[in-house]
Amino acid sequence: MNPSVNLSELNARVLAACAELARLTEVPGETTRPYLCPSTRDVHAFLFAWAARLDLSVRVDAVGNLRARREGPRPDAPTLYAGSHIDTVPNAGAFDGVLGVLLAYALAEAVQGQELPFALELLAFSEEEGVRYGVPFIGSRALTGTADAMLGLTDADGLTVADAITQFGLNPDQLPEARVQGQSLGFLEFHIEQGPVLQAAGAAVGVVTAIAGQNRVLLDFTGRASHAGTTPMLHRRDALAAAARFVVAAEDRARHTPGLVATVGVMHARPGAINIVPGDVHCTLDIRHEHDAVRLEKLPLLLADAERFATERGVTLTVTPKMEEPATPMDAGFRALLHRAAEAEGLAHPELVSGAGHDAMVMATVMPAAMLFIRSPNALSHHPDEMVNAEDVEAALRVGVRFVEELAQEVRA
Amino acid sequence: MNPSVNLSELNARVLAACAELARLTEVPGETTRPYLCPSTRDVHAFLFAWAARLDLSVRVDAVGNLRARREGPRPDAPTLYAGSHIDTVPNAGAFDGVLGVLLAYALAEAVQGQELPFALELLAFSEEEGVRYGVPFIGSRALTGTADAMLGLTDADGLTVADAITQFGLNPDQLPEARVQGQSLGFLEFHIEQGPVLQAAGAAVGVVTAIAGQNRVLLDFTGRASHAGTTPMLHRRDALAAAARFVVAAEDRARHTPGLVATVGVMHARPGAINIVPGDVHCTLDIRHEHDAVRLEKLPLLLADAERFATERGVTLTVTPKMEEPATPMDAGFRALLHRAAEAEGLAHPELVSGAGHDAMVMATVMPAAMLFIRSPNALSHHPDEMVNAEDVEAALRVGVRFVEELAQEVRA
Repeated sequence: MNPSVNLSELNARVLAACAELARLTEVPGETTRPYLCPSTRDVHAFLFAWAARLDLSVRVDAVGNLRARREGPRPDAPTLYAGSHIDTVPNAGAFDGVLGVLLAYALAEAVQGQELPFALELLAFSEEEGVRYGVPFIGSRALTGTADAMLGLTDADGLTVADAITQFGLNPDQLPEARVQGQSLGFLEFHIEQGPVLQAAGAAVGVVTAIAGQNRVLLDFTGRASHAGTTPMLHRRDALAAAARFVVAAEDRARHTPGLVATVGVMHARPGAINIVPGDVHCTLDIRHEHDAVRLEKLPLLLADAERFATERGVTLTVTPKMEEPATPMDAGFRALLHRAAEAEGLAHPELVSGAGHDAMVMATVMPAAMLFIRSPNALSHHPDEMVNAEDVEAALRVGVRFVEELAQEVRA
Repeated sequence: MNPSVNLSELNARVLAACAELARLTEVPGETTRPYLCPSTRDVHAFLFAWAARLDLSVRVDAVGNLRARREGPRPDAPTLYAGSHIDTVPNAGAFDGVLGVLLAYALAEAVQGQELPFALELLAFSEEEGVRYGVPFIGSRALTGTADAMLGLTDADGLTVADAITQFGLNPDQLPEARVQGQSLGFLEFHIEQGPVLQAAGAAVGVVTAIAGQNRVLLDFTGRASHAGTTPMLHRRDALAAAARFVVAAEDRARHTPGLVATVGVMHARPGAINIVPGDVHCTLDIRHEHDAVRLEKLPLLLADAERFATERGVTLTVTPKMEEPATPMDAGFRALLHRAAEAEGLAHPELVSGAGHDAMVMATVMPAAMLFIRSPNALSHHPDEMVNAEDVEAALRVGVRFVEELAQEVRA
């Protein structure tokens, strides 16, 4: 590490930058920055200025990703990618995505004076949250060559992704040039955990083992609405009685399967009157695990539970699959490197699964990918009260610097 | 019975009248007749004409009940009351309430030629459903002297009950004169069952043992909304997981307690997204039994279940009582008379509980009251497809005529 670099001071600038970028918004008083909204330009301007101070070359690719590049020692040197996303959910916090981008910049600054046997490219993905077009990862999918299919999607105003790109002053025809070129060493993403695991473990950072695979399913129970007073229990076709047992089964099966999470997030009974037995229930299931085999064993068992509870009550069940994503294991070599780096910094370095999707999931399809999670002290995310501890962010930065230095040694060897 | 009376022909007129009155409505194409709506006058005109053919004296009392009276043999003779209500829910069927009124008229016609030792008063209550003012039984409460407190209630247009009475051309100051006067023998109400019990038993009619007592309760479970992917099961404060176990407990306790019905009719989880653990659930409980002791033993057990499920999950529970009505046993003497009458007609005469409230519940506070239920072949009610079998209605009429004849013998003795 460049001994002239003060990581504490650099970390303070990262946190100040998070606060500054949180004020760049489409909605005054909150942080709301959907894909390619006008305030995206202000974020770009901020990052461009930082990159300029580091003598990095900067371009905005065809989907609006800001890409700042330090070239390698030779034209054919491989590239290490680092970054995250700059779009946000409506009324977001200050750290989801942006912190990972700014830590990548801080990392580049920390190693600025060092020779590295690889190029370093800092990625500020323009879209990860899926807010504007209902589908996430437009930014990272441009790098992996899978964003083409998204150009025709329309937003609430009927504008396509291609329209949004053109309105922003970019050219959708240049999408092929957004793909990663040459040899990739891999992708490193820092991100807040957005959950309670590191807080409970008393750890500043954690190494992600995998991004969980998931299924999302809609369930519609159809029984018969009837009078709550005049319909004896054994004459009922109570859709809610069936659906409630399904919720209980989901909780029980998940609690008894290590690492499994199962959530019924939507539950609505109709007609919805205090004195009417519900005839129809609409509910949902979201089930995730780091190992596909576990998830794919438990999901049909749960749906069979639901079917049985329905049949026992003369209720019919319709199951509509909405989404299926396989699990994405993080790269074993990069993970080992993160563990060693944290160990060298004297930090605890527990492993944990990412229950949420991240750009690293997309990048992992074309290169080794890894994530370092930073403790979420209140487990909040997608919320203005989202927070981090300053010392945890500095710990992540220190781990990142060690990671780059160790990687440099490995590549040289 | 007057041998010149053909009960089959009389029954056919009752059914034709049901169809005719179903066309008297505020909403063309459906049957919608809230309290003192203009079409109430048309119902009154129809009943007035029938009463006139029977030489009955007719008055409309201060709350709009149409009361047709055959005087007794002496001024101090007691009165037998019979009838039901003529208001309806929105988009109602043709039988709920009206059938009981028309059977009372048919009964009066069937015994027209007979000497009776009592007066007979046919009651067409103006309000039972509670649609216009949110509180039921304005009609029957006028007869028991408990309607005064309702005069100030307001409808959706801000009109009070007193306003509605005045607009209909009646005088709310005459409410005291609506009270029953002199000695009452009792009240007999025919009504469709609105449930599946007689259909399952294969019986045309049934004798009501009691109108169930009930409690209605609102339950609000408050946990913490969190990310469905990043929140492990044991870190959740899932309001829906707690509420679902409550629904299961309600079903289980009711199924294991003969005669108990427990219904969760409203269930709504917030924020209500497929990938968010629900932080808040609002639901309801409606619990009924013919014996207050059973209901009042089970209700606190169920609420304790709910509290336990909440506490186990770091969820808080708020319980808001909405309504409590004690059970109303039907008069033992009148019930015995109905059984004897049905037996004499060669009919099955099972007993059953009324899970719904009826005017007989109010009338029972001031006189012996009884109800004869008529089979609901599709268990539907408060629905345009509400139906009856013609032969079941005739069975009820025959039982009613026998009942009056037997009662006359008893009174003479």
